[in-house]
Amino acid sequence: MAEGPKADHYLGVDLGGTKILTGVFKNSLECIASSKLSTKSQRGAEEVIERIARCVQDAVDEADLSIKNVAGVGIGAPGAVDFAAGSVIFAPNLEGWKNISLKKELEKALDVPVFVENDCNIAALGVHAAELKGKPKHMVGIFVGTGIGGGLILNGELFSGFNHTAGEIGHMVLEINGPKCGCGNKGCFEALASRTAIFQRIKEGVKDGQKTLLVDMLGDDLKDLRSGDIRKAIRRGDKFVDKIVEEASEYIGIATANLINIFNPEVVVLGGGVIEALQDEMMGVIVETAKDYAMPGTMRGVEIIASKLGDNAGITGGAVLARKEAK
Amino acid sequence: MAEGPKADHYLGVDLGGTKILTGVFKNSLECIASSKLSTKSQRGAEEVIERIARCVQDAVDEADLSIKNVAGVGIGAPGAVDFAAGSVIFAPNLEGWKNISLKKELEKALDVPVFVENDCNIAALGVHAAELKGKPKHMVGIFVGTGIGGGLILNGELFSGFNHTAGEIGHMVLEINGPKCGCGNKGCFEALASRTAIFQRIKEGVKDGQKTLLVDMLGDDLKDLRSGDIRKAIRRGDKFVDKIVEEASEYIGIATANLINIFNPEVVVLGGGVIEALQDEMMGVIVETAKDYAMPGTMRGVEIIASKLGDNAGITGGAVLARKEAK
Repeated sequence: MAEGPKADHYLGVDLGGTKILTGVFKNSLECIASSKLSTKSQRGAEEVIERIARCVQDAVDEADLSIKNVAGVGIGAPGAVDFAAGSVIFAPNLEGWKNISLKKELEKALDVPVFVENDCNIAALGVHAAELKGKPKHMVGIFVGTGIGGGLILNGELFSGFNHTAGEIGHMVLEINGPKCGCGNKGCFEALASRTAIFQRIKEGVKDGQKTLLVDMLGDDLKDLRSGDIRKAIRRGDKFVDKIVEEASEYIGIATANLINIFNPEVVVLGGGVIEALQDEMMGVIVETAKDYAMPGTMRGVEIIASKLGDNAGITGGAVLARKEAK
Repeated sequence: MAEGPKADHYLGVDLGGTKILTGVFKNSLECIASSKLSTKSQRGAEEVIERIARCVQDAVDEADLSIKNVAGVGIGAPGAVDFAAGSVIFAPNLEGWKNISLKKELEKALDVPVFVENDCNIAALGVHAAELKGKPKHMVGIFVGTGIGGGLILNGELFSGFNHTAGEIGHMVLEINGPKCGCGNKGCFEALASRTAIFQRIKEGVKDGQKTLLVDMLGDDLKDLRSGDIRKAIRRGDKFVDKIVEEASEYIGIATANLINIFNPEVVVLGGGVIEALQDEMMGVIVETAKDYAMPGTMRGVEIIASKLGDNAGITGGAVLARKEAK
């Protein structure tokens, strides 16, 4: 009976521009240990991959397991990926990441099968499989953070389109002559309602002499402004910040309605750092606006909810992907 | 060998607000006869259904066949349908059409299996199966006429969502404070680029004293203005009309890019009366604008084309549906 250790755990990795998160999951998708490391993307892709491997080892160790107990690693990367090749084609928030063979390099470092997906796709997988128990046939995930991305579950499966780039909902134009977006176009959803857009509008207001508690809290230059500060300011009665967040919520509601009219999903799930920090402030307006803009008949039985997974959506989805692929 | 006639043909029906089109198709999807009748929707649903049955009989007779040679009828209706029940839930352009049991009534009249779908869904099916030989795995159909509708082919199958209402792309908001739409919202794609929107902008210009050849052609009130008149005016050098059509083409291009960013389909097909009449004037700007607004990577190998089926997309799709369902 000299069997080796049983490879019955799955590892999820969320590779972000500032931090790497890893989690060890049982087959039931219960997370039994996790770890975190800064990305240090300025040090180059090779070192980032070493850090990912280290963060994986840390989580496995934390769970009192060895890497031999892991059947597969699923990793979400912030950019365009080639799923079949397991490479990152381009990741704007990771310095120098162009055509990086992430799967190959990580498999070399860890000696475990690795599967690479887009971060929003993987977050949608995590929410669908773990939080919603795989029940909705069609689900749209909207993730609002530094940027805005989407993940689509159609007929129970991740939908990624012809070039594996489907779900780029952040660059859906909502206001043709709206504010300039990082992508070069104007009026993209991301340029109206991401954390970046909200912060920019607040900073512009302050520059124009607008009064806000945020200046008392952080100084004139609003250095180190975070979503949590915005929540605090609103709760202390800051009308200016409240209005900007309300407007962003309306944009998110309109984008949600667009996606409901287009896909008619059973569930729309909102997630990401902005929603996690400002859920109580934003979800009411988002749902109300979406219902206003959705066509009659399309909303029947459709739910719009905030994910409870928060920052763990990515690692959970990584484990879901690994469980599916490492058979 | 006293066998009955062979039921090896399929019938497609396009039920519109003003006319009914029917076509008899071989299994190969070759159309061998067609017929047309005005809808007369003001006479009520019962009479419209009688007229559909008559128009079906006319096409069958034209093909020197009998209804016994028909294995199934597929019909596209301009509104929300319950596919399973074969009923039309609501059709804004057909007077009094609420919860009409179209399948049941037509089967009674024709004694042949009948299948009911939304008109844009069925047009997308027709283009995908007949014009594109079923090749694209993912296709988005954009149909620009009096209104704007869409049809989605994902993983080779018609995608209709949770309540069978997917593809309502005409009510995707593109310009948050844009012109009022018939649906009650502002800045919908349909309110910016449909035939109705184009005609309205021309009429408003004329009211404001704008010079246009259309007034010479049709009189001050632009009575009986049609898409063909617009084409004529542009070809004769009418700058005002040309600009309005160019703007509409830009809106269609932006909407196309939104859908490419969201779905990453292999092919986007444009159809409907406006595209059919103004294809040469519009397609260049549509394709150019869409490429401008699509994210890098998403457009690789993606085609944006105008359907060659024109008015026959609906009846062709009806035959495709009947061939699929009447097995």
